[in-house]
Amino acid sequence: MGPGTPGKVYLVGAGPGAADLLTVRAARLIEGADIVFHDALVSEEILALARHAELMSVGKRHGRHSAAQDRINAQMIEAAARHRVVVRLKGGDPMLFGRAQEEIDALRGAGIEYEVVPGVSAAFAASAVLGVSLTRRGIARSVVFVTPRVGEGEGPSRWADAARGADTVVLYMAAHEAPAVAQALIKSGRDPGMPVAILENISLADEKRQFRLLGELARTDAGRMGPALLLVGEICREAMHGAQPGN
Amino acid sequence: MGPGTPGKVYLVGAGPGAADLLTVRAARLIEGADIVFHDALVSEEILALARHAELMSVGKRHGRHSAAQDRINAQMIEAAARHRVVVRLKGGDPMLFGRAQEEIDALRGAGIEYEVVPGVSAAFAASAVLGVSLTRRGIARSVVFVTPRVGEGEGPSRWADAARGADTVVLYMAAHEAPAVAQALIKSGRDPGMPVAILENISLADEKRQFRLLGELARTDAGRMGPALLLVGEICREAMHGAQPGN
Repeated sequence: MGPGTPGKVYLVGAGPGAADLLTVRAARLIEGADIVFHDALVSEEILALARHAELMSVGKRHGRHSAAQDRINAQMIEAAARHRVVVRLKGGDPMLFGRAQEEIDALRGAGIEYEVVPGVSAAFAASAVLGVSLTRRGIARSVVFVTPRVGEGEGPSRWADAARGADTVVLYMAAHEAPAVAQALIKSGRDPGMPVAILENISLADEKRQFRLLGELARTDAGRMGPALLLVGEICREAMHGAQPGN
Repeated sequence: MGPGTPGKVYLVGAGPGAADLLTVRAARLIEGADIVFHDALVSEEILALARHAELMSVGKRHGRHSAAQDRINAQMIEAAARHRVVVRLKGGDPMLFGRAQEEIDALRGAGIEYEVVPGVSAAFAASAVLGVSLTRRGIARSVVFVTPRVGEGEGPSRWADAARGADTVVLYMAAHEAPAVAQALIKSGRDPGMPVAILENISLADEKRQFRLLGELARTDAGRMGPALLLVGEICREAMHGAQPGN
């Protein structure tokens, strides 16, 4: 395609990892894409669907500098001038902790047509594999999703405040800071005896699950954990006690 | 199938409504199902995928009595004795405000194999169609999902407390109580000038979007709105001002 006939950019949620947990719309777009820009966390089995596409790995696992974001924006705009179907793949759902807004604003500014395709966020896949409802009746009537950035010069208080009132707390990209996160939650008033589920690579063959009490986690050496999801709340207690089925 | 060779029950998220926003796994299960139990809110285009299945409409639009839930549980268990693939379809994701836990517990108690298939919850589809990130950088670092049950004898304070600290508040099944919800949020400290997006039938042909300021909504006569999603937060301001693109 020449200039003057720009393509369309699809910001697509890649879901938790398993290819069949993509939406039907997402799978079709990836299969038909001319070029795919993807984060490091998008799984191999999903990238394998992009049979006709040039694959561009962008983004870093931890944090992302503005310069890198500007470069991604410029690459997508440039790609839309050359290709009909440009897919920007983001783990989970693009609109939750995915920095999609910067990319949308850049595409709007450049007059490029775009569409956001939602995806299954990791919390829902975690809830499914554990067999525990995020809003179990009688135990949880609210759930908050936060990302603690303890290391970014902001104190823990703001995200802990956000987490304070909700029954179930889901923490994204929290594993590296897990002990500090647990300490902050206890300081904000959470019971140290509250269960925490820690999940990695949900829905994939190398899925890992651990359970801790919040007080134990606060004293743990986080070590070198990959990007993981923390589910904090009474909803996890039965699963922690091994009551979950082998389904 | 005879007794002693029970089938499997799949608790499947139907997503926001469009058939191609089902996950690939969900679409395949619905297409292969022998029997499908579905809520009133599951869309026609999704039910049309269940070509070989007996369709059983269960559940009510507002609230659900324990007796009705017990009956659904019993019907699913009975169906699993007769059929190989039993699908229980719930709008959005089954584990968020879906009363999935009662059904899981009943299936476990009866020794029936089950699997939960996550889905795209309405908040993510709403975020996608509006083109606004739920966690827009610099504006929102947390999002809380709540369902206010103002009419169920519980005061508004508990869910409003849960909503207090989070930057973005998503209210499910809130439209009927929208003015009371807005009043409670203002009372809990939210700015009456905060924008609210009200969405119905997201992703379907008859999708409806409205925008109000929280203070306006508090003075509105809710009238007879269908089950709708409220998105409350600064993230909605640009969309409210018509800055969203025609994508």
